[in-house]
Amino acid sequence: MKAVAIRRGSDEPELIEKPRPEPKHGEALVRTLRVGVDGTDHEVLSGSHGGFPEGEDHMVMGHEAVGVVEDPNGTGLDEGQYVVPTVRRKPNGETNEYFRRNEPDMAPDGEYFERGIVGEHGYMSEYFTSPADFLIPIEAEIAPYGIFVEPLSNTEKALEHARATRSAFDWYPESAAVLGNGPLGLLTLWQLTQEFDRTYCLGRRDRPDPTIEFIDEVGATYIDSRETPVDEIPDEHEGMDFIYEATGYAPHAFETVQALAPNGVGALLGIPGSWDFEIDGGSLHNDIVLHNKCLFGSVNAGIRHFAEGAAVVEAMPDDLLDHLVTTVTDPENVEPAFEDGDDQIKAIVEFESP
Amino acid sequence: MKAVAIRRGSDEPELIEKPRPEPKHGEALVRTLRVGVDGTDHEVLSGSHGGFPEGEDHMVMGHEAVGVVEDPNGTGLDEGQYVVPTVRRKPNGETNEYFRRNEPDMAPDGEYFERGIVGEHGYMSEYFTSPADFLIPIEAEIAPYGIFVEPLSNTEKALEHARATRSAFDWYPESAAVLGNGPLGLLTLWQLTQEFDRTYCLGRRDRPDPTIEFIDEVGATYIDSRETPVDEIPDEHEGMDFIYEATGYAPHAFETVQALAPNGVGALLGIPGSWDFEIDGGSLHNDIVLHNKCLFGSVNAGIRHFAEGAAVVEAMPDDLLDHLVTTVTDPENVEPAFEDGDDQIKAIVEFESP
Repeated sequence: MKAVAIRRGSDEPELIEKPRPEPKHGEALVRTLRVGVDGTDHEVLSGSHGGFPEGEDHMVMGHEAVGVVEDPNGTGLDEGQYVVPTVRRKPNGETNEYFRRNEPDMAPDGEYFERGIVGEHGYMSEYFTSPADFLIPIEAEIAPYGIFVEPLSNTEKALEHARATRSAFDWYPESAAVLGNGPLGLLTLWQLTQEFDRTYCLGRRDRPDPTIEFIDEVGATYIDSRETPVDEIPDEHEGMDFIYEATGYAPHAFETVQALAPNGVGALLGIPGSWDFEIDGGSLHNDIVLHNKCLFGSVNAGIRHFAEGAAVVEAMPDDLLDHLVTTVTDPENVEPAFEDGDDQIKAIVEFESP
Repeated sequence: MKAVAIRRGSDEPELIEKPRPEPKHGEALVRTLRVGVDGTDHEVLSGSHGGFPEGEDHMVMGHEAVGVVEDPNGTGLDEGQYVVPTVRRKPNGETNEYFRRNEPDMAPDGEYFERGIVGEHGYMSEYFTSPADFLIPIEAEIAPYGIFVEPLSNTEKALEHARATRSAFDWYPESAAVLGNGPLGLLTLWQLTQEFDRTYCLGRRDRPDPTIEFIDEVGATYIDSRETPVDEIPDEHEGMDFIYEATGYAPHAFETVQALAPNGVGALLGIPGSWDFEIDGGSLHNDIVLHNKCLFGSVNAGIRHFAEGAAVVEAMPDDLLDHLVTTVTDPENVEPAFEDGDDQIKAIVEFESP
């Protein structure tokens, strides 16, 4: 079968031929429809994040996928069921307390593999196998947009954790900002418009721009970080009850404290590398304490968050989802899907039309 | 009556004479027994924190108090009842949503006064009045230690918030560290020994030292920050599931991220001033995200946390409480209570023997 993979020593995706995988006991065989490309894929290509499966000279790319069950293999799934696979897997198939609790997203380093990212092949191939418990059934109507379930699962987890951090007191959030206008930021922005009275999205682009058009369309306010730095958001707009950082730009993680309203909470999702810079750490420390603020990091998602992510995709208008899809390529010609210009929001490698 | 106050323009406490206050409707008159001195009092004296009552040339000091009801004034309290007053009050007597919810600790700037700190006189006088709802009844046996209820209320709030931040997943914390060996740090350390399997306390002192003796006595491990910087704690000891920062030393707020175990949470309590310094912000951002870590600030405490603080004082052995009291002076001679050397843990101004 065809697969798009990265080889050791390379930093570019490559079309390869691989044997079609055989489902083991408890696994189903899935025919791949579409696989999305995101920032993590670019980090995998650049070698700054993730790692190859042991003993393999390549790793199949891709962790945002939607497919259709080809062979249920006795797992209870139905042939033809549309499914979205989760990302984290037991390392070398060995379970641990986090998988037992159904919270692989809370497992520390070494206690998980991530398909297409670290230790295990991804989904960018004509077929893949997966334990049936890690295949989330979705409705046929959202199959074309199934690749958005995985990014939204991250948001569902972050929102659940954010609410938890503020659950020791009565919290009535009204304002929310997304830092970053990539596909994850924009998907999240739509979700926030359903829960918050006033929403904002930070970028650094000039109009006309497809991401700013999306921000306008969902009724949020665009903040140009070149005009309004993150720490000046409260003066220019208002303090934010909730901030979702999806830039990976480390100074934003710390400026988030200043952009929060009293009792606000910031979810950090970006994964930057080492970078020294100066901060007014005293004022940040003072601010976070005197105003009961909270910052937390959130990575990956639990099984339940994938099901919630699917519900968000179902609720989201098709024209907004279509707005996010800027590139659809076939596996023989993936280059445009890995281009990252200002015209690109979400690129998809399509193995079979959904 | 006698009172210990700070005058505008001065940075030293002064014994003054004031009229005994008259309780208004809903208020009781309390006879002061003991008032503790803490870091916030020093910040008030230095002018770095807080502010004078409007129209007054002085502010009575003190917010950690224990007293006895002299005149219930129809509030339902009994004459002779031992009480601990809470700290936050309605600004100019005007209520707001935070006081309505009984969560004055969550009120932002301007929506509260703090007795002895900002906008309203404190408790370092022979008598004070207070709305009865802000007087927490305590058992007679712990009256000598009643001044520990207020600092412990801060810890109870921080612990409640810390648990809340981790309530979206199954959290089984085992290790906890207190950064700082002041009286708040040591009281908290004892409380943590009741909940965590392994506890640690950070200081920068040589043995023999009364705070290290306390740390030994409660079965915790002393960490000398001159030998083991905060970010090296996981290598030297273990990653901490919970960290309680009570130093006000801003770099520790950020190093806390590195000292946490995966899925751990750090409570920041210190209130430093502005201070620029360099951090590896990229690595911190990466670490907090990939390991689902959380940092939050916590200030003051709600009414329920004072009651919980009183329960902790009741449970704590008297010899440990006595170990913390290093100075007891009368209001005519408060200087030793405001000295802050290595021999000082908790200093108390005593108006009447409890």
